[in-house]
Amino acid sequence: MSTPKSNWTTDPAPLLRVGEGFRLDEVDTRSTPGYDGDKKSGKKDLAALSDELNDLQERLFAAHHDDETGPAVLLVLQAMDTAGKGGIVRHVVGAVDPQGVELAAFKKPSKEELAHDFLWRIRPRVPGPGMIGVFDRSHYEDVLIGKVRELAEPEEIERRYEAINDFEAELAEAGVRIVKVMLDISPDEQKDRLAERLDRPDKYWKYNPGDVDERLLWPDYMKAYQTVFERTSTEAAPWFVVPADRKWYARLAVQRLLLDALHDIDPQWPAADFDIEVEKKRLAET
Amino acid sequence: MSTPKSNWTTDPAPLLRVGEGFRLDEVDTRSTPGYDGDKKSGKKDLAALSDELNDLQERLFAAHHDDETGPAVLLVLQAMDTAGKGGIVRHVVGAVDPQGVELAAFKKPSKEELAHDFLWRIRPRVPGPGMIGVFDRSHYEDVLIGKVRELAEPEEIERRYEAINDFEAELAEAGVRIVKVMLDISPDEQKDRLAERLDRPDKYWKYNPGDVDERLLWPDYMKAYQTVFERTSTEAAPWFVVPADRKWYARLAVQRLLLDALHDIDPQWPAADFDIEVEKKRLAET
Repeated sequence: MSTPKSNWTTDPAPLLRVGEGFRLDEVDTRSTPGYDGDKKSGKKDLAALSDELNDLQERLFAAHHDDETGPAVLLVLQAMDTAGKGGIVRHVVGAVDPQGVELAAFKKPSKEELAHDFLWRIRPRVPGPGMIGVFDRSHYEDVLIGKVRELAEPEEIERRYEAINDFEAELAEAGVRIVKVMLDISPDEQKDRLAERLDRPDKYWKYNPGDVDERLLWPDYMKAYQTVFERTSTEAAPWFVVPADRKWYARLAVQRLLLDALHDIDPQWPAADFDIEVEKKRLAET
Repeated sequence: MSTPKSNWTTDPAPLLRVGEGFRLDEVDTRSTPGYDGDKKSGKKDLAALSDELNDLQERLFAAHHDDETGPAVLLVLQAMDTAGKGGIVRHVVGAVDPQGVELAAFKKPSKEELAHDFLWRIRPRVPGPGMIGVFDRSHYEDVLIGKVRELAEPEEIERRYEAINDFEAELAEAGVRIVKVMLDISPDEQKDRLAERLDRPDKYWKYNPGDVDERLLWPDYMKAYQTVFERTSTEAAPWFVVPADRKWYARLAVQRLLLDALHDIDPQWPAADFDIEVEKKRLAET
């Protein structure tokens, strides 16, 4: 299945990937790297490329979901509130068969979770072979809010970067393609989105007074993200910073990153593990 | 949100519902009860009514997902192989936000599961408040294959019907709307679908030689289903038998049953649990 014509001018992955010398504060949150189009074309391209995503997801599932170990995709989503994590899950991941998707939303840790190492609650949610997993927030909370709010000692925060790299290297070794995405919005865009939630009765439920408290710590969070990128954007599990003031672009870009991961795996329809002619005969006799 | 114009002539629920004197062998598996249209209009209506399903699902989630107890929907899917359970999950349930859906596929029980009561593995998979749950196969396997293949003593099978009714009554009491669907295909239709799986390399993975073994026991399975309907179609958790030789009809019908369950709950956007004016002011000051 070849990629249909779209308004992508180039694969955005190299443009979005966090490499040497990356500076979060230099990202233009309204930009659309690699894409020459607007909201309207973006919606069309998202739908068109969903077919390709679907095809690849089904192949991945078909080839590996019964295996003990094997390839999987893990999309890690991190962002400030209102940046559009939910929309990615809804409109990008939601376009493929839910039977091949494992979602995990990590909230404030429970008492039991806090009594264990920070990766304890993460490990069981890693997608199994053949699956696309999505972490809506993740172990990175423990070096983001964990650092900004001083929920752990500085030495423990330090330790966690290495623990994360070891953990992710281990997953990559086992065949999990890790796609780490930070949806990058501007404080102004967040203000508009929070204001909308306060204006619409069908959006009140998405508003939490704590969102404003976190918003006041914006510069601290950006610093914590910068450190995360410097310490944990590895060959095995690189970070991608996706400009997200334009929701339609962020969705397109994450879709492309998932397509890249799946093309990389290049899953093939599995051969029959039975004798086709024998089975045709058995079936005909029924 | 009012239901858009469609080719439904009447709510199919009363036509599909298993009541007094129901006979499975009298169902026309190619019929389309309550629907005056064809595959083409069916596809269009499915898409149009998906918007309504989406809206209701989001309200349900918004109103209740943070509650300790509260309303949920549980769709139980049972059928012979190839009847289209996967297609329901993909095309009906797959149209709503995956963040509001909890899927559980019950396979052959593990050793550990067999060491417990048959409901042991089911209970933890009941959808939480605000969620739409789907059981792809279910506790009914234990009175279907369990009976046909004599995997338990007859007294134990007998006991299970009552245990199921008690379990489901308990769920209904807690606010779970249970929609039990048997997708009803003919043996001839199954033969065609299995043959297709043997003809297409992209379908081999869906074929299992065991499917033919089960197929040979068709009359026994139909008898077991008839008994299930007689013993477990209750006021709190009725069965619906959906003619499924036409996949497009089965999808439309299950969508309508889900819509009915959601309309019944009639979820409303929750009121703000904060002071809107105070929050507007706090936000403005940031």
